[in-house]
Amino acid sequence: MSKTDLKIRLKIELPDGVRLGYGKIDLLRAIDREQSISAAARSMGMSYRRAWMLLEELNRSFASPVVETRMGGAGRGGASLTGTGMRIIAIYDDAQTRANEALADQLRKLADELAGDVSPPTEEGS
Amino acid sequence: MSKTDLKIRLKIELPDGVRLGYGKIDLLRAIDREQSISAAARSMGMSYRRAWMLLEELNRSFASPVVETRMGGAGRGGASLTGTGMRIIAIYDDAQTRANEALADQLRKLADELAGDVSPPTEEGS
Repeated sequence: MSKTDLKIRLKIELPDGVRLGYGKIDLLRAIDREQSISAAARSMGMSYRRAWMLLEELNRSFASPVVETRMGGAGRGGASLTGTGMRIIAIYDDAQTRANEALADQLRKLADELAGDVSPPTEEGS
Repeated sequence: MSKTDLKIRLKIELPDGVRLGYGKIDLLRAIDREQSISAAARSMGMSYRRAWMLLEELNRSFASPVVETRMGGAGRGGASLTGTGMRIIAIYDDAQTRANEALADQLRKLADELAGDVSPPTEEGS
């Protein structure tokens, strides 16, 4: 098992106890891909109801909705991300990348404490 | 509601699906404070069983145990953090601080998208 496996998963605390983590971000990404909330939920093994609840949390948190839905005949509607939804994914991805860069040192120190280390002890000056 | 409320909560993915987040870190801190696993669990509104499970996950993940327990007469044992436990808290705290610094820009951009913004739109060149 490689010590370089360690990765950050960011959770950002929004006001009113709402959290923005990669679960919600992955849901937004799936909606963008599937152009449908139900297909997105299905692709994530998530109930439609749960997907709706997560989207409602996001819609309440942000100034504009993150997803827009289109009504269609016989339930054949669709959904797509709004500009806000797109920007939130981009900001989160950027933050995630920067976190893994900025915390490389801490992740390495933590990796040094892990079980299964077969490498010789490294010099640690500080 | 202040826009400066946004904060990072780090979750670090350890091997084998174990996650190190502030829940486990808070438990370690409580054990250090209470010098007892059951008192620590109680202070967090957590069952003893759940506290044990979280500690077991950590003990399996790291090369040495994070907590050591002392047997005592009539169940009056105690627990304290090991050096590993102490170091893990320190690394996590350090990572948490650095993340909030390193991601200040992204957090600000995200805050700009939040509902309840009464400030005028800011110039965003990129």
